[in-house]
Amino acid sequence: MPETWAISGVDLHVEVGSARVRRTLEDALREAIRTGRLPQGLRLPSSRQLAADLGFARNTVADAYGQLVAEGWLVARQGSGTRVARRVGPRDPRGHEHVPASRPSRYDLRPGSPDVSSFPTAAWTGAMRRTLAVAPVEVFGYGDPRGRPELREALAGYLARARGVRGDADRIVICSGFGQGLALLCSVLEERGASTVAVEAHGLPSVRQIIRRAGLGVSPIAVDERGAMVEALTDQAAVVLTPAHQFPLGPSLAPDRRSAVVDWAAESGGLVVEDDYDGEFRYDRHPVGAMQALGPDHVVYVGTASKTLAPGLRLAWLVLPRALVEPVLAAKAYADYTGVLEQLTLAAFITSGGYDRHVRARRLAYRRRRAELVRALASGAPSGAVTGMAAGLHALVTLPGGVTEADVVGRAAGHGLMVGRLADYAAADAGGEGHPSALVVGYATPPEHAFTGAVARLVAALIEPGPGGRTRP
Amino acid sequence: MPETWAISGVDLHVEVGSARVRRTLEDALREAIRTGRLPQGLRLPSSRQLAADLGFARNTVADAYGQLVAEGWLVARQGSGTRVARRVGPRDPRGHEHVPASRPSRYDLRPGSPDVSSFPTAAWTGAMRRTLAVAPVEVFGYGDPRGRPELREALAGYLARARGVRGDADRIVICSGFGQGLALLCSVLEERGASTVAVEAHGLPSVRQIIRRAGLGVSPIAVDERGAMVEALTDQAAVVLTPAHQFPLGPSLAPDRRSAVVDWAAESGGLVVEDDYDGEFRYDRHPVGAMQALGPDHVVYVGTASKTLAPGLRLAWLVLPRALVEPVLAAKAYADYTGVLEQLTLAAFITSGGYDRHVRARRLAYRRRRAELVRALASGAPSGAVTGMAAGLHALVTLPGGVTEADVVGRAAGHGLMVGRLADYAAADAGGEGHPSALVVGYATPPEHAFTGAVARLVAALIEPGPGGRTRP
Repeated sequence: MPETWAISGVDLHVEVGSARVRRTLEDALREAIRTGRLPQGLRLPSSRQLAADLGFARNTVADAYGQLVAEGWLVARQGSGTRVARRVGPRDPRGHEHVPASRPSRYDLRPGSPDVSSFPTAAWTGAMRRTLAVAPVEVFGYGDPRGRPELREALAGYLARARGVRGDADRIVICSGFGQGLALLCSVLEERGASTVAVEAHGLPSVRQIIRRAGLGVSPIAVDERGAMVEALTDQAAVVLTPAHQFPLGPSLAPDRRSAVVDWAAESGGLVVEDDYDGEFRYDRHPVGAMQALGPDHVVYVGTASKTLAPGLRLAWLVLPRALVEPVLAAKAYADYTGVLEQLTLAAFITSGGYDRHVRARRLAYRRRRAELVRALASGAPSGAVTGMAAGLHALVTLPGGVTEADVVGRAAGHGLMVGRLADYAAADAGGEGHPSALVVGYATPPEHAFTGAVARLVAALIEPGPGGRTRP
Repeated sequence: MPETWAISGVDLHVEVGSARVRRTLEDALREAIRTGRLPQGLRLPSSRQLAADLGFARNTVADAYGQLVAEGWLVARQGSGTRVARRVGPRDPRGHEHVPASRPSRYDLRPGSPDVSSFPTAAWTGAMRRTLAVAPVEVFGYGDPRGRPELREALAGYLARARGVRGDADRIVICSGFGQGLALLCSVLEERGASTVAVEAHGLPSVRQIIRRAGLGVSPIAVDERGAMVEALTDQAAVVLTPAHQFPLGPSLAPDRRSAVVDWAAESGGLVVEDDYDGEFRYDRHPVGAMQALGPDHVVYVGTASKTLAPGLRLAWLVLPRALVEPVLAAKAYADYTGVLEQLTLAAFITSGGYDRHVRARRLAYRRRRAELVRALASGAPSGAVTGMAAGLHALVTLPGGVTEADVVGRAAGHGLMVGRLADYAAADAGGEGHPSALVVGYATPPEHAFTGAVARLVAALIEPGPGGRTRP
């Protein structure tokens, strides 16, 4: 009865009968294979795992797999699980560039991403379903440029509790990522006649690009083992810092410098932008709270779900000095809003405790990975030293004298491993004399099953002799 | 076993057992009432309706309601359904400004929104769940500034089929709304040294504001009964048009003007931005295809899910001339991305046919509403004439001579009805001599149950005598 379906607006697919569930799952898998979303050769989760993820009976999933094996979409082999069949057939309709790379082993230890395979899909979609079932209809409307009040309330509570942030929901503005938040702030500064924003001399190139795009100059300040050397600040309009865990060098900002930068802001009228990208992840002790608490009227706290959950959500938040709320909203007007459904779902996820549980689980997993990385390097490649705090999602691995970053990165690529170079994060005028050659290793990036292999390849790349044979440990 | 839960990342809430479902629903409702998301006095959907929406057994919902009545969260009364209890208690933690307005009847016929209460929640969350179950992990990563290939492929097919748009997935860029799309285009134009963009002299104020915000001038061109008078175009860098259904005046752009504007673009190097905000909704005949097909190298087609599904999704798409793809992506870089999960869900919704079914059902519903509006005005307030095509989500209602828009809007407000004035959409230098006083009636806006009451209030506002008694029909 498609007409009835269409007119009532009720999707009967949610009726849970096992035959219907099986058919739906089969259709979804066929479509995903046909369009190349599930690439040839890909190993599927076990029927037990997928059944658990979906909340289905295991037999339902096993039967769907069996049907697709019979139809030739999947191949099941004892010991190697169920895989997408390799086919000879018409070209993928999407053309070349979207066909997934067919290189079978690709290891990724570049920084900047959590293990996105840990995204709690079932919990997230469950939270969305429960939330939407009781949400008032206006949530589907254009919404408030601040973001949904439910999410701002939930974040105000969470940030106070987990990060010591001071500020109520009225000072929070939801945005679609740290980048958008920084762009909004730069736009406000530019309109006020600002000319220069200070950044850490080693940091994300995109931060410098966003500042320049807003028509402002970039003024790098050096970083040492106590964090950014904020005593170098003069008349810049603002400074962007990563106080909890400097990216990519790794120290946290020393207590006296935290006070000093807030004092600088209070005296000069400058603004401090606190990029708390990985503040939830500290492994050796309770995390240091946000610097924002020292000066809520001078510091903008920026947090994100990109590292705790997934960058694909495009959810971040600014906690603003009260006087900045209206100007930021004006800059945001008309063009930039964030999807409401994801906002409500995150609110429900936080309120139900699911977010805390997920962060705690990820913290355990990443702590274990960091320890494994340290151990593997200490025993396999002792000349490559892990520096920096036991925190966050990345570590700096310094190279022995005479070994260049390019050497090691090149050898790693030969093993199918991608890894970051410290040089990629230096501002042009960083004056990096104080920093050795180093790799930036994002140990959170690979999925769980690929982590050990990735570390083994890193060790191999570190101990192999270079072209001139200089690097034997 | 919270540890197990947290570590496996599997939310067992999706297990469907009726006791668990009932408890989950109770928790969600309690939380929504506690935080004020469900305001005091609000009437809940019937247990039958909510059960159908959620795909649960009716008894499960009825039991949950019964439990919450017993706990004092809800009040059930014969004949008036189940409502959120009015409480005397601690102040809503969110403070004053977020407490929903307690005015019991508020009718909204302002234009710009579809009936968001028709959002297919169950189908949408079902599509999301099925999609994420088989999505490759990289969808949770930072993603492609163009948007997910799955969605761009699905849109290329849909737009060709439903709107005659020419262009493959490589020319489509996903953005978070028409506003963001226009802002990106303006930013590209401004970098190329453009100075002025033409707009229809009656149109959305936000369009003019986005253009000005990009540092460009706005040049209004008049609209008559054959659409925008594009012969007035000279050396503007671009023109923003609503060819399918001019907003808010209502005509479609005449065929000779469609050709003329594409010729203008080809000769002058100007760009045409086709805002196809409601092109899916035509009631008297098959819709006219997109103008973009006449000149895919000179016209940017902009479509959106804001009118077909809900503005809260923040999903729109640009189909760009090939030469504009890279510049738009460069403008989008770093700061502006759209959530990936919603993109994948929309792709699955289109591919499965669910989007078409939803649009078809909405088309039937809005056609019925428009006919009811025309009928009610003809019999109740014949001096207020509905003008414009049988299309879209709004109608222009012209007022008899001597009656001002402010008079009628004021009387409507007295009845608890909000409605738009034509004057609100005129550019400052529109030269509106050709247009009479008129209301802009968004007949799609109210939920189904409130539509007839809203129209009755509109009729009442039109026939009541004004302060000077001039308006008796």
